[in-house]
Amino acid sequence: MSHSPKHPAGHPAPTSADVARLAGVSRATVSYVLNNTAAVRISDRTRRRVREAAEELGYVPHAAARSLRAGHTRMVLLPTAHVPVGPLYSRFFDELQWALRRLDYTVVQYGSLGMDGDEAARAWAELRPVAVVAFGEIALTPQGVEVLKRSGARAVITLGAHQVEGAHALVLDQAEVGRQAVAHLVERGRRRIGVIMPEDRRLDFFSVPRLEGARQAAAGTGAEIVPVPLRHEEEPAAELAGRWRDLGLDAVFAYNDEYAMLLMRALQDAGIDVPGETAVVGADDLLLGRLLRPRLSTVQIDMVIGRHLAELVDRAVRDPGGAPERHDLMAARLIHRESS
Amino acid sequence: MSHSPKHPAGHPAPTSADVARLAGVSRATVSYVLNNTAAVRISDRTRRRVREAAEELGYVPHAAARSLRAGHTRMVLLPTAHVPVGPLYSRFFDELQWALRRLDYTVVQYGSLGMDGDEAARAWAELRPVAVVAFGEIALTPQGVEVLKRSGARAVITLGAHQVEGAHALVLDQAEVGRQAVAHLVERGRRRIGVIMPEDRRLDFFSVPRLEGARQAAAGTGAEIVPVPLRHEEEPAAELAGRWRDLGLDAVFAYNDEYAMLLMRALQDAGIDVPGETAVVGADDLLLGRLLRPRLSTVQIDMVIGRHLAELVDRAVRDPGGAPERHDLMAARLIHRESS
Repeated sequence: MSHSPKHPAGHPAPTSADVARLAGVSRATVSYVLNNTAAVRISDRTRRRVREAAEELGYVPHAAARSLRAGHTRMVLLPTAHVPVGPLYSRFFDELQWALRRLDYTVVQYGSLGMDGDEAARAWAELRPVAVVAFGEIALTPQGVEVLKRSGARAVITLGAHQVEGAHALVLDQAEVGRQAVAHLVERGRRRIGVIMPEDRRLDFFSVPRLEGARQAAAGTGAEIVPVPLRHEEEPAAELAGRWRDLGLDAVFAYNDEYAMLLMRALQDAGIDVPGETAVVGADDLLLGRLLRPRLSTVQIDMVIGRHLAELVDRAVRDPGGAPERHDLMAARLIHRESS
Repeated sequence: MSHSPKHPAGHPAPTSADVARLAGVSRATVSYVLNNTAAVRISDRTRRRVREAAEELGYVPHAAARSLRAGHTRMVLLPTAHVPVGPLYSRFFDELQWALRRLDYTVVQYGSLGMDGDEAARAWAELRPVAVVAFGEIALTPQGVEVLKRSGARAVITLGAHQVEGAHALVLDQAEVGRQAVAHLVERGRRRIGVIMPEDRRLDFFSVPRLEGARQAAAGTGAEIVPVPLRHEEEPAAELAGRWRDLGLDAVFAYNDEYAMLLMRALQDAGIDVPGETAVVGADDLLLGRLLRPRLSTVQIDMVIGRHLAELVDRAVRDPGGAPERHDLMAARLIHRESS
């Protein structure tokens, strides 16, 4: 197969020299204007002429060339979420992107499906981001952080359960969700409490610490915690409901509202009264929980708004030698409705 | 504020010269090995030595420098979705990313919140992607396509309702969803059919063509279509249910399953029998529709798997002079359950 020319037939790529010629200025002036170099005095009229010439020719600066000259980029790299993250995270990331854009960063998301933490760090480093915000299923190691910093990243920030050496940490302690749910159920007099564990391994990041938190809340109260695996489909839920009474559970923390909806339907179809026979608590405070009958009790999770994270990114980029910061961001509170 | 050094104190960035020295080979050999240049014969032993040296030093190639040398990148740029796209799209994009990764492309998502089509095209062009897949709320214009091609993009592919001049098009005709829903309701003898229109303007991309399809399916049948605005919250749904009988609707296509769930709960709470008094149809075939009582009728949407799109990207990159391709990808079918 013949390899194709760089540009489609008949469209030579315009260069900054073309822009300079059309605007009647030097190439250096084009570069100063289009890269917003504030240090050089250029009249508004000239700036306008350069911008109009660039627009007319369809010229855009080359971010890679600019980054090679500057030694770094304004690119903040976030991994793409591959877990079904739901509306809470979507809102959070939209806010984060807005806030970084306002601080003049370019936000790029990078798919990291199937990579481990060190593979991901090397792949990210190739793009020479000025900052990386890592979270979720990608577990960065101290070596990965080092690879990123050596490639020029001024800030590496992890968003997760633990702090990683060399990185700033926004700690989201999912255990708090399990603690809140089970503390409530114990207070309501429940003594044998199931904790739904999704079979989807991508959710371990959330489910394992939630179970741990449930155990912590039950410790010393005489209540017992029973992990209950469940796949998010109708048949396994019906099967679980069919042997529910053998499990002898008087309550269940259902991982989140969507699992709670699935389980509650199966329990009700099997003739098990909620909350009379078994209390059910979800998490996330989705609208659908308020649409169920009985209305679903849930754990509401307040995530820090993206703007705060954007400010940490900017602070860390400006002061890459600063000591790693650690902020605990998870706040969770129980909303008591009718199902518990 | 003092500006900081490019690399954190004490960690000079390793260069390919460092790797060459440690491996005892030339810099050219390092470049050939780490960029997987197949044209040059290098022994497996040397390749291994170079890779080990790079790993030991924490050296990673610079994607931007490589792209400047090559004149283009292997970067495929996708916009980040800012609409609440749901599990169907998440699965589709995961598949697309996997497939492109296997074809040795780097997939990067770029946040384009609040940009119009031309602004987005210029911002994307700065990253010099070899291909762009645009979709959703970003409406590329022929000018935007031109800017991207002049900056070196070999393939621009739109995913949406319309074809854009100069770009390949994967057409997802959302009207088909509305047509399927309303054709079913007409066939069931319904004559005054509401179509829920979400007040969230970001969903116009889906909702407007769905309404158009609903009108097409009703045309000539004697059935009437009534657009019904709704915000996805409990109070407006209850308010709508309170004046439902004034609207005189015997059926409703509820935009999607989540809106259908909200509306059905409000109708039932207001004492309106579903489907006796009003039939309800959703769309997306989510699990939650099967958990409702009555079980929700819905329009199932089959999206082309991401692999097909990845193959189109690769074909278009290899043959940038090829005529724009257009493929219709939307397939929708009605699943009749109990609510209609």
